[in-house]
Amino acid sequence: MALRTLSAKSAAALDKELMSSGAFSIDQLMELAGLSVSQAVFKLQPLNQGKRILVACGPGNNGGDGLVAARHLYHYGYQPTMYYPKQSKSELYQRLTKQLKDLDIPFTEDFDSALKQADHIVDAIFGFSFSGEVREPFPKVIEALRDTKIPVLAVDAPSSWNIEDGPPDSGPGKGFQPQALISLTTPKPLVKWFKGRHFIGGRFLSPAMAEKYGLDVPPYHGLDQLVEIGVEGQKL
Amino acid sequence: MALRTLSAKSAAALDKELMSSGAFSIDQLMELAGLSVSQAVFKLQPLNQGKRILVACGPGNNGGDGLVAARHLYHYGYQPTMYYPKQSKSELYQRLTKQLKDLDIPFTEDFDSALKQADHIVDAIFGFSFSGEVREPFPKVIEALRDTKIPVLAVDAPSSWNIEDGPPDSGPGKGFQPQALISLTTPKPLVKWFKGRHFIGGRFLSPAMAEKYGLDVPPYHGLDQLVEIGVEGQKL
Repeated sequence: MALRTLSAKSAAALDKELMSSGAFSIDQLMELAGLSVSQAVFKLQPLNQGKRILVACGPGNNGGDGLVAARHLYHYGYQPTMYYPKQSKSELYQRLTKQLKDLDIPFTEDFDSALKQADHIVDAIFGFSFSGEVREPFPKVIEALRDTKIPVLAVDAPSSWNIEDGPPDSGPGKGFQPQALISLTTPKPLVKWFKGRHFIGGRFLSPAMAEKYGLDVPPYHGLDQLVEIGVEGQKL
Repeated sequence: MALRTLSAKSAAALDKELMSSGAFSIDQLMELAGLSVSQAVFKLQPLNQGKRILVACGPGNNGGDGLVAARHLYHYGYQPTMYYPKQSKSELYQRLTKQLKDLDIPFTEDFDSALKQADHIVDAIFGFSFSGEVREPFPKVIEALRDTKIPVLAVDAPSSWNIEDGPPDSGPGKGFQPQALISLTTPKPLVKWFKGRHFIGGRFLSPAMAEKYGLDVPPYHGLDQLVEIGVEGQKL
């Protein structure tokens, strides 16, 4: 049995339901999602192998997960640097940003320079609600992510990939294949084209909600807020 | 150098500041506090030594931490049962309660019966804002916690203890000495009288805020959301 995935439309419906009848606040869900992302970085990039994490955040929820992850990474002992060129004006994102500034975490607008000083990159630019064209200033950023030798962890989707159809045939994301991906709550159809290490995070899905959406509750272990899906995971 | 503590008044001021200039929402702080509590249970009560966790929640924030902890415990594989006789009408607590009900976690009003079927107890009845008398229906509950052989983990304070002066000289809490305590953000003065295993949780304190309040950022390790303070911790 293959790992079950959720289309962009269904993922949006699930998120909405978690926050309506599920009674979760977006603060809670984003905190737990970002915590999962930070744990993936911890597994991929041990502290003693380079602490400098460049976190690239887009304007929406995917970027919010990156903001939360950066805070946890700081507390683990990493040195995050934020690239967050299109900052949302919503109160939640402003608060998450303030929490980072209170930790003296630097924000940069110069992605290329930041890349030269990074040991690992978190791609929190676009998530499951992405479709269409990559807008400025992100085309160059995605080209840089595609071309860099520094490992990239993508959050929910490699940015610029189509959620259903995977890697684009043209544009900056053509040929972008990150080293790792963390799918939040559940994988999206694009994982079919993904070749790196794959984690699932967001340990809050109830069995009832999983059943309603035809999903599996991922096989988390111990206190982990994420699980790596390998050969075993494909047999869920 | 002894571990630095924070009076009830200063702890309240710190909480308030985290949520004003610190820009944290109560949802975020409670999620992280409850997560810490759940990790303490995981350390104290391994899953293969009894999964039945009775979580006793009071009407305020301490109870809220218990509600969050119970959800995480469920996801780890425990079987929580809730005793939450004075349910807050605030929207946050109603949501946290709904999240538990969606997991089919039982709520009981019969503490004594629940106690007989528990392997471990979380005392999330009163926290650092407690003072004065223990009100109904909690006197009998605290007597039961005092007398039971089942291990008890107290959240922030053994319920009924005075935050500054420790164990009460009279009343139901006289002689109550839980097996374990998790102090949230920072220990309170009552820890001087506490004899069990002691954890610190709530991994979100910034160095700047710690300095302002004359506190130590606890020496967390790895991904842990808590740290046990033993002989080493006393030398922080």
